[in-house]
Amino acid sequence: MPRRKRARPTLEDIARGIGVHVSTISRALNPASTHPVSAELTEKIARVSKRLGYRPNAAAVMLKTNRSRTIGVVVPDITDPVFPPIIRGIEDSLARHDHIAILGNTDSDPERQRQLVETMRARGVDGLVVGSVLRHDPEFSRVAADIPVVTVSRRTDNARFSSVVHDEDDGLARIFTHLQSLGHRRIAAIAGPQTLSTGYNRYSSYVRHAEKLGGTSPLLVSFARSFNEAEGERCAEELLSSRQQFTAIVCANDRLAVGAIAALRSQGIQCPRDISVTGFNDMAFAERLSPALTTVRVQHYRAGAEAAELMIDLIEKRTTRPRHLVLPVDLIARDSSSAAREGSLPPAISNKTRKHAS
Amino acid sequence: MPRRKRARPTLEDIARGIGVHVSTISRALNPASTHPVSAELTEKIARVSKRLGYRPNAAAVMLKTNRSRTIGVVVPDITDPVFPPIIRGIEDSLARHDHIAILGNTDSDPERQRQLVETMRARGVDGLVVGSVLRHDPEFSRVAADIPVVTVSRRTDNARFSSVVHDEDDGLARIFTHLQSLGHRRIAAIAGPQTLSTGYNRYSSYVRHAEKLGGTSPLLVSFARSFNEAEGERCAEELLSSRQQFTAIVCANDRLAVGAIAALRSQGIQCPRDISVTGFNDMAFAERLSPALTTVRVQHYRAGAEAAELMIDLIEKRTTRPRHLVLPVDLIARDSSSAAREGSLPPAISNKTRKHAS
Repeated sequence: MPRRKRARPTLEDIARGIGVHVSTISRALNPASTHPVSAELTEKIARVSKRLGYRPNAAAVMLKTNRSRTIGVVVPDITDPVFPPIIRGIEDSLARHDHIAILGNTDSDPERQRQLVETMRARGVDGLVVGSVLRHDPEFSRVAADIPVVTVSRRTDNARFSSVVHDEDDGLARIFTHLQSLGHRRIAAIAGPQTLSTGYNRYSSYVRHAEKLGGTSPLLVSFARSFNEAEGERCAEELLSSRQQFTAIVCANDRLAVGAIAALRSQGIQCPRDISVTGFNDMAFAERLSPALTTVRVQHYRAGAEAAELMIDLIEKRTTRPRHLVLPVDLIARDSSSAAREGSLPPAISNKTRKHAS
Repeated sequence: MPRRKRARPTLEDIARGIGVHVSTISRALNPASTHPVSAELTEKIARVSKRLGYRPNAAAVMLKTNRSRTIGVVVPDITDPVFPPIIRGIEDSLARHDHIAILGNTDSDPERQRQLVETMRARGVDGLVVGSVLRHDPEFSRVAADIPVVTVSRRTDNARFSSVVHDEDDGLARIFTHLQSLGHRRIAAIAGPQTLSTGYNRYSSYVRHAEKLGGTSPLLVSFARSFNEAEGERCAEELLSSRQQFTAIVCANDRLAVGAIAALRSQGIQCPRDISVTGFNDMAFAERLSPALTTVRVQHYRAGAEAAELMIDLIEKRTTRPRHLVLPVDLIARDSSSAAREGSLPPAISNKTRKHAS
């Protein structure tokens, strides 16, 4: 059942147009042929091919080479502002190597992730670049066991897959240096999901730096179930109701920080006047928010681009063992952090706290 | 040169495992077979296929059916906040029909768009969903002449390709009703690129509504060369230096509005106190900006999902002529618009204006 009105031209059509055998055409169009044809004939064939609108059949090439030049890209959700620049980096890099990306969203659901990987493998992808992997992800490890995999922005604990991540620990170190210089000593945290390397590493760094300051308490930490604004709001309310004193909240990413600032505001607490709030990622529009967000700038586009380069190396067998790249980060100080408020929290907070804790 | 350690299991492997001819396996696995095999044998074959990890060879299926079940999705730039929800809608819809998307960015460069479409066609895509098309796009029309095309968010003037767009005119009508109710009469505009249906239609509607108010002037309009913050800033500065009086700026999208507000602020002009500013799209984080943006909410996810459904209809030949869908929009009034300032502009503006115009 041909789908188009005019049938797609084949090698046979070109051969008929010139009056040679089809195998001659095939040899002429294949740069690797060991029995090349004359330059004159090659040129004639190229001319006729172009006139007829001949395009090599992708499926036939794929069958012959056992390579699809297609990479599966798996992310939790493309509408999360973290992922578009990563995906753009992946695609630009793949294009330079004449590869393309097919894209899928898991919504952080392991079953969807498994189905997606199965679908992509059935499509014959040459490898997978994955931004959705968990620290411990046996299901993913099983379905992706025998093809090249690079994880981006996240990594697995067993370091089995090549990865490109950011220097989470240095990011937290810079946040703490910044907050300490502003006089903050009691620093709370909204941590990300501990099943993800980003959430776990940023939390571990927070604990280490907070211990150096001498004042950690489990009550100073609230754990978000996912990296979004709603969880930022919930966690900030939890911290406020803990009856702990603190002058700053270190959030595991920007979206949690945005939610936290909104929750503070709805309780009459001003950021940064009463409490400073910091993020992580420097997502798009972080500088346009109210207040403009103090955060850690990571290199999402570059992470995607490097992940794609690692993938090409794996496919071309230039790398045989997993490689791990850690990209440097920067502190971006904006308006959501300022000098620590002296003395205790304002009455508004104490009242709210009492009400919440009762 | 096999890439994987274990060879991929074939139909022959399954046939050997059961002791039947390979054609029996083929018939059993093909739901459309006219010579089906017994239920018992079918079940046995399914069991063995699963144990061996058999996956149909995508390339072979593609060769046989002349269908790749792959759609090319072409956008200007995935990192523009308009496109991720559109792409997500496309992908979710395609997945329901067992199709996948390959994605490419044009950076609004016609030559890159042409190359991208050529690449996608060489990959055997069954159709194209395009968010980057111009009103008059002969180059695109040429390369996409003989495969199904749906344009999304934008359309061509000749209506040759099926499209899913938003009701731009109703959006502007709602903006004007809102601003008039707040007492605005002299309303300036930052228009989008006139080569795009979005830019052109929103501008045409602006002119129609402004004329009804009795006060249009070419000096009240500045044309952006692209839909981004930098152009919003440049255009706002141009409007301020025009020596015209106005109390509101209607921007052709949110990113232009964000830039315009920043430019006003840098000249000591407060939004909305001195000048109201409105956007279009209600992009992610529009409600978290400072001030929260008054804008027109469009349905990007739905537009993508509907575009994919139209595409499937075209591929399956349920539609033969181009179809055009116009999705309804809503006004979202937030903090960037308020009552028109009485009398003339504040001295700060008049000074600036004079300085700019001299």
